Parts: sequence; C-alpha cells; structure tokens
Amino acid sequence: MRTPLDKTFYPGSIAVIGASSKAGTLSYELVNNLVKYGFKGCIYPVNPKAASIHSMKAYPNVKNINEDIDLAVIMVPKELVLDTIDDCYRKKISSVVVITAGFKETGKDGISLEKELANRIKKYKMRLIGPNCMGLINTNPTVKLNCTFVQGTPVSGGIGFVSQSGALGAAVLKTVQQNDIGLAQFVSIGNKADVSGNTVLEYWWHNDDIKVITLYLESFGNPRHFMELTREITKTKPVIVIKSARTKAGMKAASSHTGALASSDAVVDAFLEQSGVIRVNTTDEMFDIARAFDMANLPKGNRVGILTNAGGPAILAVDECANWGLTIPELNKRTQVALKKIAPPEASVFNPVDVLPPADAVTYAKASKLMLEDENIDSLIVVVGPPLMLDTLGIASAICEAVKGTKKTVMLVMMSQDDVIPKLKEVNPVHPPIYRFPENAARAISRMVTYKKWKERPEGLYIEFDADKKTINKILSKYKGKSGIYLNSEDVSAVLNAYGMPIISSVFAKNTFELIQISDKIKYPVVLKAVGKKLIHKSDMGGVEVDIHNSDELLRSADRIIEKLKSYRAEHLLEKFMIQPYVSGGVETILGITKDEKAGSMIMFGLGGIFVEVFKDVNFKLVPVNDVEANTMIHSIKSFEMLSGVRGKKAVDLKYLQESLLRLSQLSKDFPEFTEIDLNPFVFFDEKEKCTILDARIKYS
Amino acid sequence: MRTPLDKTFYPGSIAVIGASSKAGTLSYELVNNLVKYGFKGCIYPVNPKAASIHSMKAYPNVKNINEDIDLAVIMVPKELVLDTIDDCYRKKISSVVVITAGFKETGKDGISLEKELANRIKKYKMRLIGPNCMGLINTNPTVKLNCTFVQGTPVSGGIGFVSQSGALGAAVLKTVQQNDIGLAQFVSIGNKADVSGNTVLEYWWHNDDIKVITLYLESFGNPRHFMELTREITKTKPVIVIKSARTKAGMKAASSHTGALASSDAVVDAFLEQSGVIRVNTTDEMFDIARAFDMANLPKGNRVGILTNAGGPAILAVDECANWGLTIPELNKRTQVALKKIAPPEASVFNPVDVLPPADAVTYAKASKLMLEDENIDSLIVVVGPPLMLDTLGIASAICEAVKGTKKTVMLVMMSQDDVIPKLKEVNPVHPPIYRFPENAARAISRMVTYKKWKERPEGLYIEFDADKKTINKILSKYKGKSGIYLNSEDVSAVLNAYGMPIISSVFAKNTFELIQISDKIKYPVVLKAVGKKLIHKSDMGGVEVDIHNSDELLRSADRIIEKLKSYRAEHLLEKFMIQPYVSGGVETILGITKDEKAGSMIMFGLGGIFVEVFKDVNFKLVPVNDVEANTMIHSIKSFEMLSGVRGKKAVDLKYLQESLLRLSQLSKDFPEFTEIDLNPFVFFDEKEKCTILDARIKYS
Repeated sequence: MRTPLDKTFYPGSIAVIGASSKAGTLSYELVNNLVKYGFKGCIYPVNPKAASIHSMKAYPNVKNINEDIDLAVIMVPKELVLDTIDDCYRKKISSVVVITAGFKETGKDGISLEKELANRIKKYKMRLIGPNCMGLINTNPTVKLNCTFVQGTPVSGGIGFVSQSGALGAAVLKTVQQNDIGLAQFVSIGNKADVSGNTVLEYWWHNDDIKVITLYLESFGNPRHFMELTREITKTKPVIVIKSARTKAGMKAASSHTGALASSDAVVDAFLEQSGVIRVNTTDEMFDIARAFDMANLPKGNRVGILTNAGGPAILAVDECANWGLTIPELNKRTQVALKKIAPPEASVFNPVDVLPPADAVTYAKASKLMLEDENIDSLIVVVGPPLMLDTLGIASAICEAVKGTKKTVMLVMMSQDDVIPKLKEVNPVHPPIYRFPENAARAISRMVTYKKWKERPEGLYIEFDADKKTINKILSKYKGKSGIYLNSEDVSAVLNAYGMPIISSVFAKNTFELIQISDKIKYPVVLKAVGKKLIHKSDMGGVEVDIHNSDELLRSADRIIEKLKSYRAEHLLEKFMIQPYVSGGVETILGITKDEKAGSMIMFGLGGIFVEVFKDVNFKLVPVNDVEANTMIHSIKSFEMLSGVRGKKAVDLKYLQESLLRLSQLSKDFPEFTEIDLNPFVFFDEKEKCTILDARIKYS
Repeated sequence: MRTPLDKTFYPGSIAVIGASSKAGTLSYELVNNLVKYGFKGCIYPVNPKAASIHSMKAYPNVKNINEDIDLAVIMVPKELVLDTIDDCYRKKISSVVVITAGFKETGKDGISLEKELANRIKKYKMRLIGPNCMGLINTNPTVKLNCTFVQGTPVSGGIGFVSQSGALGAAVLKTVQQNDIGLAQFVSIGNKADVSGNTVLEYWWHNDDIKVITLYLESFGNPRHFMELTREITKTKPVIVIKSARTKAGMKAASSHTGALASSDAVVDAFLEQSGVIRVNTTDEMFDIARAFDMANLPKGNRVGILTNAGGPAILAVDECANWGLTIPELNKRTQVALKKIAPPEASVFNPVDVLPPADAVTYAKASKLMLEDENIDSLIVVVGPPLMLDTLGIASAICEAVKGTKKTVMLVMMSQDDVIPKLKEVNPVHPPIYRFPENAARAISRMVTYKKWKERPEGLYIEFDADKKTINKILSKYKGKSGIYLNSEDVSAVLNAYGMPIISSVFAKNTFELIQISDKIKYPVVLKAVGKKLIHKSDMGGVEVDIHNSDELLRSADRIIEKLKSYRAEHLLEKFMIQPYVSGGVETILGITKDEKAGSMIMFGLGGIFVEVFKDVNFKLVPVNDVEANTMIHSIKSFEMLSGVRGKKAVDLKYLQESLLRLSQLSKDFPEFTEIDLNPFVFFDEKEKCTILDARIKYS
C-alpha cells in the first residue's frame, strides 16, 4: 500500500528544496506565499549557497535538517531532481511536490527522465505531485498551506479544485479570490507522473473539508477508473468537470502539449453522464455552480421564487430558469396578501415579486422571509438591482440575516456591486452565494436540481441473463490468433442466439441452382441478400431485394442482384445468397458495440436510417450498463417519440428494447474480444415476439 | 418632421428640472455626475425651493432662465410632469428626458398619464426620452455628457448602447467601466412614450461617433420596422442585440412588467437573422463582441493564429475556434523557421505557437510580428498566461507596439490580470481588445467573421413572377366580410395556380354513384380522399387511400373510407370524394404562411412528416423574402441533406424549391388577407416537372 495524501495536503513541516533568496524567482515567491499565508507548521529552506532565506535558517541539503519533514517541495534544476528524490528517501520523506519543469512535456529526453522519476517514486513508496506543476493549497485553519507561487491570498471554503493546466489553475486562483469563491484545497497535478486526478478524487472522497470537487482536465489517464470512482463519489459529493480538447483541433493541440491520447468527445460525454459528473465549458460556469453547492442548501425541487427591485433582471432570471426546466409558480394567496402589506401598492406579488427600486432593507428582509415560508417554492433568488443611492450593503446584510437558518436554497444577486461583496463578507461571514447577474444564479439552481435527481435516482441493477458461453467459446477457438476480422453469418447468428438475441432466420443457397431447389420450400414473402466476406456495403450495390412473393420473383431478384453486382464489378465477391423472411413495419433501431482505445467497450443506441445518418441521434455508454442506464439511453435520444408512438402509432415494446440493450451489454462484457458489434437494423414492434434483428456484423480482434 | 436627436445627445445647455440640493437623492446624483464628468456646456438646475445647487445658481422655473436650453432633464414628481412639459414648450425646448417613474408601468392611471404625455410631446413637436428611464451618456470629448445617476465614470469608445431596462443598463455601465469597454453613447429608453429603440437606431446609423450598436430589449414595438432598419444599418455598422423574454415564462414576466405584447422567440430569431443582427444571450457576451468590433480590424477570413506561453489556455482557444467554424492552420515554413530562432528549443511553432512560460516582452513582440506577417492567418490571439513573477505589463505593452498598424485582427488575452489593464491603457491608449479568457476572444472573432460574410453577401433580389391577380380578387370578393374561414378546394387550387404553384389535379365525385361513372375515365394509379369543410384531419381518420390501381380497387377504397369515417362518427362530414394521381417517391416538404400579431406575415419552410413533428426542423422569415433569403431558408434546415441527396439519392431541384418559396412569398405579400397558407406536403423531385403540391389549405381573415 502506498501512503495516502495526508502528508501532502496536511503537512506539519515542509522542506523547500531549491529555495532562493532572490526576490522575483519562483522559489522565492513560493516560500513568501507559505510565510505570508501563515503556514501552521515549520518551513525549512534548502539551498547549498545561502545561509538564510526569508529570515529562516537555510540548510545545504535536506539531510542536514534534524527534524522530521512531512513534505518536500522540489524546485531544483531538472538535472538534480533525481538526486534530490534520493536525498528525500534517505531522510524518510514520503511526500514530495516537484515544481521543476522540463520532463515529459519537452520531448524524448524529458520522457525518459520522467520515467526514471516515476520508477524511483514507486520503488521508494513515496507520493509525488508533478513534475511541471504549480503546487498546492490547503485553506484549513489548522494547516494554512499556500504552497504555490501564484499572487494573492486564497479565500477559504469547501471547494476542492484539481487543475491539469498550471496556467489555467493560476488564472482560476485569482478569479476565485476576486469573486468570493471559497477553496478548501487546490492542486496542480502537472505531468501526473504519480498522483493523477483519480488519486486526488479518491483522497477527497472521504475528506470532510471538501464539500464539492472541481476538475480542469485536458485528458483522462484512465477514464474507466474515473467513471467508476466518480459514480461512487457523486452519491455524496458533487463533481464538476471542465474537459477541454473537445474538438479535433483542440485534441491535436492538447496532444502536442501533453503527449496524451485523447478520447472522442462523445465518449467523454457518455462516461461523464454515466457517472453523474456535471460537465461545464468554462471556469466561470464551473465556479458559479461550485459555490452554489458550497454555500447553499440543495433544493428540494425545481420551483423557484424570484424577489427583485427591477423588472429587467427578473425577466432574465425567469428566462434562464425556464430554459433549464425550472418553474416559477405563483405564490400562494396567503403569501401574496402578506407581501401586499409590506410592499408599495404598485409592487407585483405573484412571482417574480417586484418590490420596486426604492425598496429598503426592511422590505427586502420581510419579503425574503415570506417567500421562503411559501410551500410553493423550493429556491429563492433575491436580486438587488445596481445601486443608485441605496444602501445596498445594508439591504444585502438584512437579506443574509433574514434567510439564515432556512432549509431552502437561497441565491443573492448583487448586480454590479463587486465593491459591496468584501464588505458584506465582514458583516455576514455566512451568506448565500452571491452572483453578478441573475442568469448565473438560475443556472446554478438548475444544476443543483439535476444533481439532486441523480443522487435520488434508483441505483440500477446489472442483470445477468442466461447465456450459452460454451457455444461462443467454441466459435472463438476458430478465430484465435486472428485479428480485425468479421465473423461469418452462421457464427454471427450463433453468437447472438447464445445471448438470446433474435436474429432473423436465414436459408442459404450457393448459386442459382440451389436457389431453385429451395424456392418452393420456403414461406413467402422473403428478402434475398447477396453474401460475401468482402461485400460489406451490399445494399448500396443493389445486393438486397425485398418483399419477394413467390419463387418466380425470387429467381428474377437473384438475376437482378447479379446484374447489379456486375455493374459494380463486384460479382466475384458474391459467395452465396441468403433468404430471410420479409419484415415490414416496426421501428428500425441500431444497437452496437464499439471500442474506445482508452475507455474500452462502449454500447451504442439510436434509430436507424436518416436518424443516425442525418441527425446523428445516437447515444453511448460504457459497458456494462445497468437497467436504469439502458432505460436512460432509450429515453434520451431526440427521436424517442418514434419509439413511444407518433400520430396514433403504437409504442414499441420498450421493456424489451431495454432488455436487448442489457443482453448486448452482457455479451460485450463477457466477450470483450468482440470489438465491434453492429445490430443494424434491429426492428422493434409493439409485441416482443415480432422484434427481430435483420442484419448483424461482429468483428473479432 | 420631428426634430432629430442632436439636441438630446449633443446639447450645449441642460436644464435639470427637479434638481435637488440633498446629497443621496437621484436628482442630486445626476447633477453631480454631469459636473463630475465635466459637461462642456452649461447646467441650469431648476428648483423652486433652492437658491443654489451644487454651487450653481438654481432657478425657480425653467422659464426664469434667460439663456437658450437644448435639453431639459425632468425629475419632478409625476403629478408635475405635464405642467413641466408645458413650461419647456413655452421656453422653446425641443428635447426632454423624463426620468420620473409612475407611468405605464404602474397600471391604469399611469397608462392614461403616459398617453397624455405622449400626446403633448407630439403636439409640441418635441422629442422625449422616457419616462421611467435612467438618462443618457455621450462620451464625445466636445460634449462629455453623463446625464445619469449611475455611479462611476464612463470610459470612452465607439459603442452605442440602448437599454430598455434601467437596472440592466446601470449594471452594464458599471461592468463596462471595469472591463475597459469604451462607450460612445448610452441611452435608457424607459417606457418609450416617444423615442424607441428604432428611433435611436435611425439616429446612430449615420452618427460617426458610433462604430457598433448594442441593444438590450424586452419587447419590439415595431419588429418589421426594426428589421428593415437594421438590414440597412448592418451594411455599415454591426448591431448586437439581447432580446430577453425568450421563454413563455419570461414573456409572462415581461408583459406584466412592461405591458407589451411579445412575439414568439422563433419569430424574433427569424427577423433578427434576416436583418444581419448578431443575437447574444448575456451582456458579457454582448460587450465581448462589441469591443472587438470597436477596437480590432474586421478579419479577412476565418484562419486564426494563436500565440501563447501556456498550453492549457491555447487548447481552450482552439476548441472554441473550432466550435465556431474557425480554422487553426499550420503556419508557413518560413514563419516556423523564423520563430524557431527567437523561441526556446522546446517551443512549439506550428500553431498554436507556445513560447513557454519564461517568454519575455521581446519574444512576444517578435513572435506577434512574425505571425501577423504569415499569409496563412487572418487573425491573431495573443495569450499571456497568469503572471508569475513576469513583468506582464511590459509584455502586454510590447505586444501592443508590435501589432500597431496591422490590418489583421488582433486580440489580447491577459489571463487574470485585471490589475494590469488600467496601467496598460495609460502606456498604450490604443491597444487591441483585451480579454480575461481565450475563449471569449475566439468567440468574438467568430462573430466578426460571420458579420463580414453578412456584409459581403449578395444583396438579394425580390423577384416578381407573373401572377393572375384578377382571379384571386374575384375569389376574394366571395369571402369579403367573413373572417377566419378556410377556402374550399376549388378556390385553393385556383389561388395557387394563379401564382404558378403546381397543385395536383383533382377530380371530384359527390357519391359512390358518381365515382363509378368516372372510375373508368381516369388514369391510374390514383389517391382517393374524403373531402368536407370540417374534415380537417382526414388522414388521421382513415379518409385517404393511396396507390389505387383500377376501378375495382377505387370502389373498395371508397367503401373503406366510409367505414372508417363511421367508426369516428364522422361520416356526415363527408361532402364528396376527391381523386388525384398517385405520387410516390420524392421528398415531402412543407411551405407555409403564418401571421405574427406584431411582425406580420411569416413564410415557413421545412421537411414534412417526422422532420417537422419530431424534430421541429423548420425555418421562418418575414415576408417578402428575396432569392438569397429563400436560398438560406432551404440550406439552413438541419435535414438539408435529405434535399441534397442521402445515400446516393439524387438531389431535388433546389432552384425550383427556391422559386416556389419566392412565389409563395409574393402571393402572401400581394394578398395578406390569406393569413394562413399551408402547402403540406409539397413534394419535390429531381425534375421540376414532377414536383407537386399534394394538399393545401388557405385561410382567409
């Protein structure tokens, strides 16, 4: 077992190796930050050339320090890093942060240096943050650790923030300071030679100082582990992620920057959704939401009350609420009557409640209390318009007092009153999250409601259907050693049948002669298909004829197919004919399995034809999926209406569709050797018995 | 002719009627703002109870002032406003701003007071801003007018900003000051009793101080005029709009707040797009884009270069560029070689160019110059990561010098360096627009590229086809005096034929007997339809039979239709049968006309069936449309691929589709009495001759 990160985040003593006495250098600024922020333990600067640094005794080497060291911060030139790690090991230091850059991010030599660093860390059973990172912060009052070289002082709160980009981390640290956003802990993980985002997630999961976890990521080292981890963590703590490098161009830029392999954005979306993680696009959005989780109660439902002294901002709030599925119900009559008594006669008391520009602290406080007592609303957004000559500090403070102790969700919007916020914090250290614009508050509430629903969703069951694994293992033995090849039709049918998936029955004929022989033994109408290992796009080449009613038509169809293939110069690819019952009606769907290089097997669902070709209306999840996830996949395609019945059509058997997804997921989990499965189309009807797979491909590799 | 707004925005003298000597009142703050900002003309406070205000002589009434007054700012109690207007008229003041509230927004009494105010203004040929507004600003150095009671000092620039909401206007004024966004003029138009957003637009159109126009609107008084006006203005100046009250809930809140009728958001989107207006959702977004237009050159194309000292922010910039259709091309070899010489060996020189964290002012300046000289890029985003111990002011200043005089588009991103911006402005008063995050710069460039394309688009022709108006007038005479009724099938066909639209030919039979008589005279295959004025949803009731091949089938179909209608107890609604040629294949579209209460007739286009029912994939424009607009309508549906040919299918005759839209538009323009026209389906084929309307409805009212 490697040691956990306690000594990294909660050190009692720190050695800063490579500390400089020269102001303006990174290592000077780091020591300066440690001292200025008031680190509660002892700092030991290490520098062979200085006697004292920042008025503290400096040591030539870490081994010269007599006391125990919990954490070593290494800022020496890259050539000296490995020796320094050895020194730390001898000094029995188990936790190190390597700020020094010049590793993986710089090319070949850097990569091998980083490998050696990682090896030594592993061998020594140490924990390493970095290299090429910007340090870490812990605002816990018993620790007071600002081990970064970023300007400014962190504001303390309940947010944990992991940044894969140093520059972005630094930018965010400044932004959160200016916006009254409270951090519990921050860490810049740099090149992730040892500690990754996942390691920190695991550590913060059970850390009581952290109420909400935020991450800026450019790549996932182990997406599957991330998914499994966050799926558990989000049961108790919200996790908010920015994953950049979303576009192809962005991925290219990221991989030249970090050297990491990127998963496609659809895959990332899939497993983030599957794990209950809140995905956002910008840091502003991330911290708007994070501070809501940190400073406000989780809303019971989606009903929002709005209190304002200006109409315009209220409209913006209502629009944004409605966009995100929140409702703005009318207040109950009792509340309206009570509000009428305290508000000016022209005030609107339905919801939004507009107490008009001259509203003072007393009116705001009373109105807030009344609205929070109304059982029609779950959350309250209080908007204080831009200050004219009003004492908005007094108003804000009165609101903070009035809402204290409520179990509902409260957001305060102080429009353009950045100057009021620090003063308000002094008067009311405990206050609702404060926003500059009402839209941001509305959006934050909507994300909280979504998270609430996620937390309360049924857990989901991984259902195991009876399956004939023996048959498949027998088939697999034929393909062993091969790679990237498609199973033949008989094997495809056998595999699907082994997992209870209804592939349409087929009869084969090697040539026209055989076709004639069987033509009067089969039940019409049928479909005739050209079959050949290399005839992948047979229907595009006219290799499929449908709705054949008798043996005459069958033979004519066979002639037509041969003609068409000839016109494509593909007749030599024809190995045999396949005859299947003709199925008409129903809804064509696609169920499939693909493999993402990093995340592993993904299950896919969508409707066939133009839905997938024109609208790209498909849905992915990591395998295996449980019953709840399978259901979500079905319901979250845009064209779901086609399944539930449009224009009086009957709904398809959704229960059976769900079961089919679960069976496919199980097959993929049991036999990951099948890297691509394509059930296209899988036609669904209102009755389970009619549902059938008309065509299927399975790739082995 | 009413006087223009020159005296409002460029007054030589101002009377502040209702000025107060009491600090902390709105009227005191307004005079204080006028004086503090250094108004270049004379201020005359009017207050019957004070001898002096703000050290200036106060007058008991405006008529006691001997000098000419250009602009009167009225802040008296609402009961005194009308008398004050009379006083102003006598004093020959032609421009007034009424700050006083308590008018339309407060209900019945207020509405009639405002009506009277508007009447008097009209009678006196004055121009009025307000009532219930927050004043106006003009930063022109020869005027220096801050006629508002908002805190802070405006920063001067080329942006004109109209706000329908006072509170939002005030919030924005503070925000723009903090963010180095330069205003030329600002006006809060309040209740719009006289001067509306359109009036200001018209005034700013030819005002040289205004480079870009921004508006915050909650409702449109005259959307058609707005559209016609902005369509012209955007040929020379960009117009950016926030239109709130987008959702039903938002509209409800807005109408209770402003009493105005709201157009549906789809209609608003339609005419904003048609007029080249840039629509945004938030004020941050609006001014991010506005200052780009104000301070940067319009890009020649969509190719962006990115220069950075940190990888993370560059990825965010690339992602955002790619999302908005901008490209990040590789730099040419010459530039790469030159960059290699000035950058550290590990630097990346393709694009994004990463000069690494220690990059200094010289490196940044040289790299900027080199990249701007590269013919592969049209725009440059320079990102300066958050300051560690670097002199970012020096870096920023060097960049400003290096890019001076370029004809390309340059954006500067100073991550988390709000403190550097005011200092930079002192050193480099002329500088590129500065952003806090790279995404914002990328988005601004994308909007500039879109605007550039709009400016350069072909103007578009309003084509007049030959039309038989006489026939239609004859038909109309039958319907005169009626309202809200649907034309009968014969009239529908006649109207469409009169405008050259190919409705399918029909034969009618009043009963089965007539049907038998004609059954051997028609060309098969045919379609049989039940017809009746009240049989609107005939196909849902089984009232349509298709692909009928002979007279036997025809009679059997008639029986089936009668049976079906009986089962719906609708057989008494059947007036006659209609027989039409059976058309199969092609792409079903919907072309239509609807009427918006405020904007007037709208033309609609989309594909039929699930495309409109499930995906709501339709497109609106105000009638009339020109050829370019018709083409845009066709190309901007999401399912356009269905028209241009999917999976080897031939494209439909797009030219003829365009023509059909133009013919429909012309019909609607010529005969607005037809408030609803529904050509559904209008089937298009690859050959014009095959295209036909299978069913049509026309409503007269």
